[in-house]
Amino acid sequence: MDGLMQPRPLTIAHILERAERLHAHKLVVTAGTERVTYAEVAEQTRRLATALNSLGVPAGARVGTFASNTRRHLELYLAVPITKRVLHSINIRLSAEHLEYIVNHAEDDVVFVDRALLPRIWPSADRMRKVRHWVVLPDGSDAVIPADPRVLDYDELVAGADPLEGSFEDSFTLADENLAAGLCYTSGTTGPPKGVLYSHRSTILHCLGTLAAGFIGLCESDVVMPIVPMFHANAWGLPYGAMMTGASLVLPGPSSDPAHLLRLMETERVTVAGAVPTVWTSLVPGLRSHDLSATRFLLGGGSAIAPALSEAYRDALGVPITHSWGMTEISPVGTIGGTRTRHRDATTQEQVAVRASQGQPLPLVRLRIADVETGAELPRDGKAVGELQVAGPWVSSAYFLVDSGDSFTADGWLRTGDLATIDADGYLRLVDRMKDLIKSGGEWISSVELESAIASHADVVEVAVVARPDPRWVERPVAYVVLRDGSAATGEELLRHITPMVAVWWLPDEVIFRAALPKTGTGKLSKSALRATT
Amino acid sequence: MDGLMQPRPLTIAHILERAERLHAHKLVVTAGTERVTYAEVAEQTRRLATALNSLGVPAGARVGTFASNTRRHLELYLAVPITKRVLHSINIRLSAEHLEYIVNHAEDDVVFVDRALLPRIWPSADRMRKVRHWVVLPDGSDAVIPADPRVLDYDELVAGADPLEGSFEDSFTLADENLAAGLCYTSGTTGPPKGVLYSHRSTILHCLGTLAAGFIGLCESDVVMPIVPMFHANAWGLPYGAMMTGASLVLPGPSSDPAHLLRLMETERVTVAGAVPTVWTSLVPGLRSHDLSATRFLLGGGSAIAPALSEAYRDALGVPITHSWGMTEISPVGTIGGTRTRHRDATTQEQVAVRASQGQPLPLVRLRIADVETGAELPRDGKAVGELQVAGPWVSSAYFLVDSGDSFTADGWLRTGDLATIDADGYLRLVDRMKDLIKSGGEWISSVELESAIASHADVVEVAVVARPDPRWVERPVAYVVLRDGSAATGEELLRHITPMVAVWWLPDEVIFRAALPKTGTGKLSKSALRATT
Repeated sequence: MDGLMQPRPLTIAHILERAERLHAHKLVVTAGTERVTYAEVAEQTRRLATALNSLGVPAGARVGTFASNTRRHLELYLAVPITKRVLHSINIRLSAEHLEYIVNHAEDDVVFVDRALLPRIWPSADRMRKVRHWVVLPDGSDAVIPADPRVLDYDELVAGADPLEGSFEDSFTLADENLAAGLCYTSGTTGPPKGVLYSHRSTILHCLGTLAAGFIGLCESDVVMPIVPMFHANAWGLPYGAMMTGASLVLPGPSSDPAHLLRLMETERVTVAGAVPTVWTSLVPGLRSHDLSATRFLLGGGSAIAPALSEAYRDALGVPITHSWGMTEISPVGTIGGTRTRHRDATTQEQVAVRASQGQPLPLVRLRIADVETGAELPRDGKAVGELQVAGPWVSSAYFLVDSGDSFTADGWLRTGDLATIDADGYLRLVDRMKDLIKSGGEWISSVELESAIASHADVVEVAVVARPDPRWVERPVAYVVLRDGSAATGEELLRHITPMVAVWWLPDEVIFRAALPKTGTGKLSKSALRATT
Repeated sequence: MDGLMQPRPLTIAHILERAERLHAHKLVVTAGTERVTYAEVAEQTRRLATALNSLGVPAGARVGTFASNTRRHLELYLAVPITKRVLHSINIRLSAEHLEYIVNHAEDDVVFVDRALLPRIWPSADRMRKVRHWVVLPDGSDAVIPADPRVLDYDELVAGADPLEGSFEDSFTLADENLAAGLCYTSGTTGPPKGVLYSHRSTILHCLGTLAAGFIGLCESDVVMPIVPMFHANAWGLPYGAMMTGASLVLPGPSSDPAHLLRLMETERVTVAGAVPTVWTSLVPGLRSHDLSATRFLLGGGSAIAPALSEAYRDALGVPITHSWGMTEISPVGTIGGTRTRHRDATTQEQVAVRASQGQPLPLVRLRIADVETGAELPRDGKAVGELQVAGPWVSSAYFLVDSGDSFTADGWLRTGDLATIDADGYLRLVDRMKDLIKSGGEWISSVELESAIASHADVVEVAVVARPDPRWVERPVAYVVLRDGSAATGEELLRHITPMVAVWWLPDEVIFRAALPKTGTGKLSKSALRATT
């Protein structure tokens, strides 16, 4: 016997409808220079919807975006899926080879490009055979616009289109909530990038996840700044979440200059911001010279947040960096860290340790750990280490148009390739990437545990431990470390610091100091680059 | 093209799984005397699941509960739907005639009854022909237990059953999220009560709505006390929401004695509570003699909250009563009131006026107003008055096993029978029940507007305006008023107070003072009872 509730689909059209009907006056600020209301964004979105029709973009077709965080990108986030096309946000930091691969693999019908980013993608245009139109997003840049009939101007295109009238939401049926809405490719460290195809349903449920109080808890009084790029896993869902709840949005535009970001946070009274650790590290020197008193919540993800980094924010602003763990395959937010009522009476040191974990899953997300050899589920005791597997309505079931290989279990859970523990409160603690374990003398050494130990030294800003081939032990650990400006810490001092924390045969053979560590296109530490030079 | 997300259903089993895996140590307190953990509730739930199997309750069968807010009732909230039966929570205040009607109409297979409530329902047992078992919930009462083979003891039944092992969540498929999970009957003021059949999907989406920050925003650090009965529209979703997010629950048990409720709020450090205005009114005299400093959010619904009542709480605790509007047909929460960033610089008086409105819809809820004559949608300008209609995934599409008549529009929106305005920020303001309008001399008088005006007098605790038949004008308004203890306000004074606010021909012909106003079974003002004596 089925319930008798209205068969209303979960669709991104609802986000537009709420922005128009409840929060028309709230602001979207781009790069600190352009201020528009949600009413204006909605009006532009309705025109863009007509423009996509006039360009003859078929239903279900992929529409590429190659753009930074701007108001125009937000309009594409809305107009593309609510007209039942698929938003393919393209990582602007990919190599030309990967770029060509994914645009061709996605069969993008149209690509929208920031003018400043044209030089990065236009040389590949003739090898992107399915792209019929290149639409240039004005961004103040004076990059050369190719004289080519395929190239159009976004503002002209939109201004020349009539706003599509009526309720987009009413045009969906319940079955349509499973329609594809978005496509992101993972930054494959091995093999070509793989596509993750989000549905309207998964996007809206994830969006409700970003609103859940006690996790990120986006709400109307927030001013939300996604520093994390909109080409990177939906900018962690922050733009959709902010619009759903009526929070104002601050989009930094193309610049990730620390002074620019700090100025924006100060002048726009930003309450919630999200960024990868590299960005958070870059802002530390300026924290005390800006009024960031509006800050309520800072989200860090993409890779582990060193406790010293999080504590630097807590010292300066009273707000730590809250750890989030996720993956492109998880829309992307899986867990949110931080302390709970259980930790109220814990010591500062204990609270720091809790904050260093990956935290608890959002509502609707399920985690388990499985024995690497047998696949059997392991106990949630905070000790057993197994492969982390994830289930939930915003978690991938397969990759787009490629064989998913062994990425999913027989019962449909995502295999993350991460080794982790889960404790009795459901706290996730990543131990290592399965492939980042170091095998020394027949025993495993966890690079992540070593990194956590080293990162607990007050002077350490960033650290990576990788394996160096060793004739006797097969592999031995080597640590790469970035110190705070002015620190005089030595390798010996760091090793002394971690000696009480790890087995003596885990101690790295060498500590190598660097001014910065290599990053992937999505800003994550590139251990493969380090390994190649080790 | 469909997305490639996991086809995971939204089911109440997830609430149990989270309670077991993330919040096993959090507490459920019943009546201040019984304290159990979510682990214990989960263990009981698993046993109850087996017990329902051993009683031979078929899938899809209705399981009645006739009980106050207790831990055992919570176990039924979980075990019944996660084993794919339907929880039919029965209003304990119904007349015997209505009771018999709904138990027979629902075809309840088993009914679980608080021992103290046996005398209220057992006399009807032989006329409830489908009920095979009556299971008595121990509650400290010594009411006589009938010597009848149909009667079982809850604690014996559960203790004698083995806990059902494994993941209930894994036993559902995506299609199953539409399975019926709960059934509530509306307290029909005309005709027999009508059943609203909730699905797992609607329940979980509504539950996520109760977690959304800036609305109710239930979170792990909350201690949630549903004073609103669990037999009344899912206790506004508070029990499911609290368990989903890991908040502790305080269930008041059978007593609604103000001293008992205040003591519970104080000793359990309750942060969030929900109740109808009558209850909130009853607690006012004790507010300042209890330490209620943990209070974060007070929810009022069921009928309009007089500004003076809300302000009494704001004065005493710093926390007003936040207005919620909903219906059994809306699971039940539709809107949440309160101020937003737009009102930050408003005067206190303006903020009071905003708080007196019904507020903005929760995410996923859509509201519109329609011309009463033509059904055409009316503008959202805060002025046009029309019938309020509602759409959303937790809104009814039909009534259970009866003709729904004209309760739904051709495009599937619920017709509420309320007259309302919606303004440019999406704020809902109820003007009147369509049937509560007063027709005087060929013009309409809004009883709700008159009530709001009268309620704005500081001494007015409760007010109802109804029509009195009039030979000349057809109908004329009469006001029934409850004053604060000790007030010496007169009818003339109240009429002087409202004269600037309403048309002169709206002024009630008479102001009648009462110690209390008559209530329906669900604690709402009974205008029909007043009309009968007017």
